[in-house]
Parts: sequence; C-alpha cells; structure tokens
Amino acid sequence: MALGKDYEGQDCSLARALELLGERWTLLIVRDAFYGVRRYSDFRAHLDAPRAVLSERLHRLAESGVLRRIRYSDSPPRDEYILTDAGRELWPVIYRLSRWADRNLPVDGPCRIFRHARDCHHELNDESECPRCGPVPLEDIEILPGPGVNATRTDPVSIALRGPHRLLAPLASADTPA
Amino acid sequence: MALGKDYEGQDCSLARALELLGERWTLLIVRDAFYGVRRYSDFRAHLDAPRAVLSERLHRLAESGVLRRIRYSDSPPRDEYILTDAGRELWPVIYRLSRWADRNLPVDGPCRIFRHARDCHHELNDESECPRCGPVPLEDIEILPGPGVNATRTDPVSIALRGPHRLLAPLASADTPA
Repeated sequence: MALGKDYEGQDCSLARALELLGERWTLLIVRDAFYGVRRYSDFRAHLDAPRAVLSERLHRLAESGVLRRIRYSDSPPRDEYILTDAGRELWPVIYRLSRWADRNLPVDGPCRIFRHARDCHHELNDESECPRCGPVPLEDIEILPGPGVNATRTDPVSIALRGPHRLLAPLASADTPA
Repeated sequence: MALGKDYEGQDCSLARALELLGERWTLLIVRDAFYGVRRYSDFRAHLDAPRAVLSERLHRLAESGVLRRIRYSDSPPRDEYILTDAGRELWPVIYRLSRWADRNLPVDGPCRIFRHARDCHHELNDESECPRCGPVPLEDIEILPGPGVNATRTDPVSIALRGPHRLLAPLASADTPA
C-alpha cells in the first residue's frame, strides 16, 4: 500500500512526531546513536537499511535537530552524527518501547540489558531509573547483551556491543581517526 | 521507496515493537483508543486513514493483544476495539512522544492539554504525572483542546473532544446503542 508520510488534518503533536520519527528505520537509527554509533558506514553495517533510505533518514534527522552533523574528514567528505539535546530527550520513548516489547511481545528474553554503570550495577527499571539510586544520567547507563541477542551477527557494531558499553560512548569506527 | 515492515536481523526489542507499532497510522489509532474512540466508523471519521489500512491495523492490533475486539452488533456484524492492559501500557510512549513534539517541533502550541481531573486540575508534567499529586490513573486524566488544535474539523470525534473529556471514556458513537 502506498502511503504518504504526512498526516494531513491530524492536528496532533503525536502526528507531528510520527511524521519525522515514524518513518521506517528512523527510530532504529536514533537507537543506534544512543548506543554510540556515529558514522554512516557503522549505521549501514548494523542496520542493513538500504543506502538511500539511510542517507535520507540521517539527513532528515539532522535537519530536524535530532542529530548534529559534524564533518570529520574533508577528502573524502565524511560526517559523524551525534544526538542533540532534543535527540537525547527521545531516550525515554526508545527505552519504554523496548521494555514494552520485552513484556508484551516476548521472544527469547531481552536482547539488551541496561544497568547503572556507576558502582551499583543494578538493572534499570521500566522508567529507566536505577532501583537503588533513582534517575541515572544517560552516560552512566551501561548496555550488555541479553539472552535474546543475535550472536551470529559479525558487523563491527554488533561485535563491539558484545561486552558492556556505556550509552553514547563512541562505538566501532567512530572512535578511530578518520 | 518500497520498504518491508519487518526488520530482519535486528535482534532488538525496539525493532519488534516497531514491526507492530511503527506502521503508518498504528500509533494514531492507539492514541484515539486512549481518547475513547472504539468503533471503526469513528476511527475512520477522525483519522482519514484509507479504509483498508484502518481495517488491517485494527485487526493486527487486536491479534497482537493491544486492542480487544468486542462484538456489539450481530447484524450487521460490528465490533468495538478497547485497549487491553498491554495496550494501556503504551500511554507513556504516546504521551512522551507528543510532549517531545510540543517542545522540539512546535507549531502553534500543544493541540491537547492533559490535566489531573480529580479535584486539582493541574496540568500533567512531562512524565504524565500531576505536579501536586504524583502518578495519575489513566481514567483520571482529562483531555482539553490546546491552542494548536484544528478547530475546523467537523467529525464527531473532533467535536466531542472540544470539551474536557476523560481518557478512555467512550467517545462519539461508541456510547450509543448499536
């Protein structure tokens, strides 16, 4: 079915959010940005999204102020994409949607475990808070593979996510020089 | 661009959530169910979604346990769709996405205001909590039109939402006999 991407006549903040974030792949790109993916080649390797789609989504997320584009190489021209403050505000949405699926569409258990990295290592609750320490800054959230993870993937992002990793810390090629 | 709806190889709870909820119109249907819309004709009048798409989405939401289908007329056969417990757990996602758009993609101000109906009438904060009373049961959340609302719509759902309305309370034709 061919469906446009706008919701004409829907005078609703949710519709406006979905015109941007409801497009296929977009929220998975934002999720990867939280995991620390920054470069096109890494998004591409981890997401298997068609090239043109991935480029268009990254462009639109940058235009809309969810990602900030930073040039890290001039020849060839290459950009990194980093979450803006507005983008970082999407964490509760992404986290809660994931937990909702863990509870309501279960497969083999969660694919990722999220815990408070600093000292306590408690698993976060459904509100993305530490049951002992309360609200946790994004940088202090640690991601670990859960029982439902697909251990057969061999792209650099999947491999880097096999060990504990802090949210937002650069992942895969993003922390190597251009 | 023709894109499938599955995210093969994405071993992620978010991808699983999006395979269901990321389809065009689906989260707006769920939003309308929170507003109290229950019948196909009302979803159709309020959403302007193509008939076939709306039928397919309602069917899939019922199959996946987000909505419960209840037959209210045998001839002609007619069903109502009501949020299940799993469906009701989506409120924080829908609410936070809307607030995110209000802050980050502003147009003319919020289209809907959400406040604590019981006694206090305080506007809910970004966590969908009452700043005075704390967490608010869904049934005690009152929706009012905000400054960004489209006042020109004449469908029965838009008209019913012009006054204060409790979340989940039947709306438009849903509370009249078959």
